[in-house]
Amino acid sequence: MERDLIARIKRLAESSAEDSSVLAGIGDDCAVLVPRPDRRLIVTTDTLVESIHFDLEYFDPWHLGRKTAAVNLSDAAAVGGSPRWALLNMAVPQGLTGVFWDSFFEGLRSRLSQYGVSLVGGDTVSAPERLSISLTLIGEIKGGRWLSRDSAKPDDLIYCSGHLGESAAGLELLKRYQGTRDTFRGRKAVHRISRAVLKRLASRHLDPEPRVTLGQALLASGMVQAAIDISDGVATDLAHMCKNSRVGAEVRAGEIPVSRSLKSASRFLGVSPLEFALTGGEDFELLWTVSKKDRSEVQKIASKILGHIPFHIGRIVRGEGVFLRTSQGAKDIAYQGYEHCI
Amino acid sequence: MERDLIARIKRLAESSAEDSSVLAGIGDDCAVLVPRPDRRLIVTTDTLVESIHFDLEYFDPWHLGRKTAAVNLSDAAAVGGSPRWALLNMAVPQGLTGVFWDSFFEGLRSRLSQYGVSLVGGDTVSAPERLSISLTLIGEIKGGRWLSRDSAKPDDLIYCSGHLGESAAGLELLKRYQGTRDTFRGRKAVHRISRAVLKRLASRHLDPEPRVTLGQALLASGMVQAAIDISDGVATDLAHMCKNSRVGAEVRAGEIPVSRSLKSASRFLGVSPLEFALTGGEDFELLWTVSKKDRSEVQKIASKILGHIPFHIGRIVRGEGVFLRTSQGAKDIAYQGYEHCI
Repeated sequence: MERDLIARIKRLAESSAEDSSVLAGIGDDCAVLVPRPDRRLIVTTDTLVESIHFDLEYFDPWHLGRKTAAVNLSDAAAVGGSPRWALLNMAVPQGLTGVFWDSFFEGLRSRLSQYGVSLVGGDTVSAPERLSISLTLIGEIKGGRWLSRDSAKPDDLIYCSGHLGESAAGLELLKRYQGTRDTFRGRKAVHRISRAVLKRLASRHLDPEPRVTLGQALLASGMVQAAIDISDGVATDLAHMCKNSRVGAEVRAGEIPVSRSLKSASRFLGVSPLEFALTGGEDFELLWTVSKKDRSEVQKIASKILGHIPFHIGRIVRGEGVFLRTSQGAKDIAYQGYEHCI
Repeated sequence: MERDLIARIKRLAESSAEDSSVLAGIGDDCAVLVPRPDRRLIVTTDTLVESIHFDLEYFDPWHLGRKTAAVNLSDAAAVGGSPRWALLNMAVPQGLTGVFWDSFFEGLRSRLSQYGVSLVGGDTVSAPERLSISLTLIGEIKGGRWLSRDSAKPDDLIYCSGHLGESAAGLELLKRYQGTRDTFRGRKAVHRISRAVLKRLASRHLDPEPRVTLGQALLASGMVQAAIDISDGVATDLAHMCKNSRVGAEVRAGEIPVSRSLKSASRFLGVSPLEFALTGGEDFELLWTVSKKDRSEVQKIASKILGHIPFHIGRIVRGEGVFLRTSQGAKDIAYQGYEHCI
C-alpha cells in the first residue's frame, strides 16, 4: 500500500517536472531547490487529522486534496508571499482505495498548480487508525517587506475580502446531511433551504478560495502592512492581530459581511448569522488594515482581483480588545462570539 | 493543552531568537527566513507515528525528541547539506504531561542546536489516539553539487561510516524489556548479556548519531558523489543507490561491520548478526562510494571526523542487484536480508 501510494505521489510530482527550480525532488534524501536571488523565504505548514479537522463521511477525497493545499496557501496569502514548493506528510490507515488516492492527488494538484507550486518531497507512513495529512509550503517574497499581524495602527480601517461564517454554516449542514451528494439531491428535511444555498455553503467549507493573488497585490501596493487570514473566525483572528500589534479594534455588527445564503441557512439551523460570521472558522478570507488616505486606492486594487468591493468592517483603535458595536452598545468579543455579546 | 504546548514550543523557539536569519518565526502566518546568497536549498521531512515508529513504553520523551531531529538530520547528512531551520508538526492525544513535553523539547533542542538549526514554525493539533510527529528541515548547500544516490559508478569502492545492525538489535532488546531503566538495572533474564552491551545497543536505537559533519566533509572533498544514509538496512539502501545509479554492487559478508556487542546480543536473541546488519534499519550510518584513486584521501578525511577508520564493505559493479559474497558463493540480497541468502 505504502509503495503504491508513493508511486502515485511520484507521478503527481512528475507533472511538475518542468520546474527548473527543482534540481532534485521526490525519491532523493533531500529535495534540492534553487531560490531566486535576493528573495526571502516564507515557510508555513498545517496538519489535518481525520475526525478532528475533517470527516470522510462528508469530505470527498478530491475536495480534501484541494483543501489540504488551500489552508496552507491561505497562510502564504496572509504574508503576501509567492508559494513555490510543497512537501506532503501523510500517516495513512489501511482501507483507502486507489480511487480515493487518485482523486485526492488530483484535488491537491489542481490547487497547487493554480499557483505554480511543485510537490518536491514528503513522507508517507502507516497509521493504526486515522488519516493525518501535513502539507508544508515554501515560497518567496521580494525585498524585506511582508504583511504581518503585528503592524496594525490606531485609526487604520479594517477590511475583509469576503463573506464570513459561510464555511461554518456549510460544515453544520454537511454534518447533518453527511455527504454532498445526498444533500445536493435534496432529501426531504433539506427542502426547507434551497439546493443552491446548500451547495454554496458546503462548497465554502469543502473548497475555500485562498486569497494568494490578493495578498500579493496588497503587499505590492506598499500601502498595506497588516494582514491575517481568517481561519478561526474574525473574533479570534482580529484579536490575534490586535494583541500582536498592541492595539484594539472596533467592528460594527451591521457591517459584518453576512450573505443572504448564510441568513437562510441560519434560520434553518437556528443559529444567529452573526454568531457564524464572528466565530465560525475556515472562511480563509483575508483581513487587512489600511490608513484612511490609502483606502480608496487599496479598495480599487482589491476590487479588481476579488470581482467585488471588499468589506469595510471597522477600525483599529488605541487600547486593547475587539469591540463589537451594535445598537445596544459595544462589547469585547476578542476570542469570543456573538452569543457572548447578548 | 494545545495552548500550553504552543507556549512551550514558543519558549523553545525563543532559545534560537539570536538567529539573524529568522525575520519572523513561530506565531506568524509564515516564518520569514533569509537564505545565504548563491546557495541551493535542501529540504527533507520525516513522520514518526506512535506504535508504528516508536512506543512510549520504551521510548522516553527526551530520546524521542532527539531522534525526531536525528532522522531528519541524517537525510541532510546524506546530501552533504547544512541544515538551518526546522518546522514541527504534531498531532497530540490527551494525557501527555508537562514533564513529558519539557523533556521532549529539551531532547529536540539538544540535537537541533548541535547543528545550529532554529525551530521556526509548525502546527500542533489534537489527535484522537496516538502521538504523531513530523519534522521538516530546510538547509543549504553551496554551489551546484550535492551527494546523491544516483551517482555511483562501476569499480567505485563502497564505504560505510559505522557498525550496522546495532539499532535493530537494540530495538529487539527494548521491546522485550520495555524501557531502558528496567533493562539497565539488570533483570534476571537480561543477565545473559552484559549491561554495557544492552546500554550500547539500546542507545544506538534511541539516540542515533546523524553523520552531518561527515556528509559535509565528503561533499567538500570533491571526491565523493554518491551517498545515502542507512535507514532501512544496507541491503535495501544500497539497492536504492544501485537502482538509481543503474549499477550493481558486491559486498563481502566478512567485511560487513558487525560489532562484538551485536554478536553477543545476536547469540542472546537467536538471530544471526549478519541478518541484523544487512536488514536492520535505523542505524543512520552513511554509505558512500569513492574511486580507487581517491580512497586513501577520503578515508583520511572520514577517519578524522569519525574517530575510526570507515568500513570498506564492497564495490560497485556493472549490471544490477546487490550481491552478498560468502564462502558459499554470491547471492542477490537487494531489498532482502541474510536469511534469504542461506
